[in-house]
Amino acid sequence: MITSTNNDRVKQVVAYVQKSKARKDGDVFVIEGMKMLREAPVLQVREVYVTQRFLDKATEEDKEILWRYGAEEVADDVMKKMADTQTPQGVLAVISQYHYSEEEVLEGYNKDDEGAKPLILILENIQDPGNLGTMLRSGEGAGVTGVILSKGSADIYNPKVIRSTMGSIFRMPFIYVESLPKMIKKLSANGINTYAAHLKGKKSYDEFDYTKPSAFLIGNEGNGLTKETADAATEYILIPMKGEVESMNAATSAAILTFEASRQRRG
Amino acid sequence: MITSTNNDRVKQVVAYVQKSKARKDGDVFVIEGMKMLREAPVLQVREVYVTQRFLDKATEEDKEILWRYGAEEVADDVMKKMADTQTPQGVLAVISQYHYSEEEVLEGYNKDDEGAKPLILILENIQDPGNLGTMLRSGEGAGVTGVILSKGSADIYNPKVIRSTMGSIFRMPFIYVESLPKMIKKLSANGINTYAAHLKGKKSYDEFDYTKPSAFLIGNEGNGLTKETADAATEYILIPMKGEVESMNAATSAAILTFEASRQRRG
Repeated sequence: MITSTNNDRVKQVVAYVQKSKARKDGDVFVIEGMKMLREAPVLQVREVYVTQRFLDKATEEDKEILWRYGAEEVADDVMKKMADTQTPQGVLAVISQYHYSEEEVLEGYNKDDEGAKPLILILENIQDPGNLGTMLRSGEGAGVTGVILSKGSADIYNPKVIRSTMGSIFRMPFIYVESLPKMIKKLSANGINTYAAHLKGKKSYDEFDYTKPSAFLIGNEGNGLTKETADAATEYILIPMKGEVESMNAATSAAILTFEASRQRRG
Repeated sequence: MITSTNNDRVKQVVAYVQKSKARKDGDVFVIEGMKMLREAPVLQVREVYVTQRFLDKATEEDKEILWRYGAEEVADDVMKKMADTQTPQGVLAVISQYHYSEEEVLEGYNKDDEGAKPLILILENIQDPGNLGTMLRSGEGAGVTGVILSKGSADIYNPKVIRSTMGSIFRMPFIYVESLPKMIKKLSANGINTYAAHLKGKKSYDEFDYTKPSAFLIGNEGNGLTKETADAATEYILIPMKGEVESMNAATSAAILTFEASRQRRG
């Protein structure tokens, strides 16, 4: 059992939790909670830590999983030091990062439905980890097949993002790209239309046909889309708003658009 | 200029920011930032505080507004003490609370469209302030005419809720009620159908007619709707989800449902 917060492995996990660069160097990210661990792909689980307190109340099945992963017992205060949450769940794991190819993201691989047409979210400089995680979660629910992020976006492996995905991080293909306009042109060449939610949009979002291969562009929470990126899109689209609302939360916009696509695709 | 954080008015504002009970007793809530102050109804603005730093960079129009409200200058560290945000915007105001009647919430008063049929959000024990604020904001955008909250929901005047509403707090009628099942029966008697997003739902949410007076029931983030409340609804509805997603963030669900109603009502 690890009882010291000065233990090297503990310090390493703390770095993974707190620093994007440490995660990148180690090629890992950190998850918390038994539910997340159960959803993690077996081959990607590198290290698992658990408290005695958790083990005391764990089901036989959970104990079996923890035993198979060779979970290391840690003291409560060690877990508290490692965890990103104020009241740690008692289980924490170090997981290998994903490395999706452009093709995987563009082709719209989908476990449920191999014939699914691409439905892509393109995110420009999304900063709020909660927003980013929520977009992965609702995106998976809407049948999004891949996510493309600009380099200026938040780190998808930030623990707050991971938590908000509620497990979608394990299933949603994604890539970071240097230039969104270039990527949007590549999508066009692949027959994927890109729709930019934009105040300049004249036609409402529900007047377009998303049963074809489609991508939605979502901009930064405060500043929206850059002109260069918005102009690269196939179409501007409008989310009609009542009252005095000027804009929508980025994650809300993404959900409205992707669930409209989902609705159309259900026929 | 107020320079001491021990000033009685400062201590009072701190209490308003931090404590629901202090807000209730004072019948007020606190907003931050010039944008919010500009949207606040004139007669409800009770006290305004501003930093020299803000005044130095303020536009003539902003200065005029602050002067008209008799804004009190405060030192930077006093503002920091009063504000809920880590980097205060330099403007803070104490605003009178709203007291909507049941009729105002049920009748669906709507500035844009006096003939608008009721479109109501019913929230059961929503705990996350960001979720609650986002629901008011996207709700206003979707044409929601009123919000009904169970007593166990977060305080709508929590500064984090206020911030997430982006101003919708000034425009969205709402009431807290003791019993949601009773209120749902009252809605029924008023010809308003209540739809409960629920795993038991068989028909997809987009198969119902929301051009009629409608209400959507949204449950607690972790536990969903209580059985008693869900059973009082006119219909269970289903938000079809792909992948391995089991549920949606409460604010995301609310946005998907209310924007489907908005889409139908645009015809």
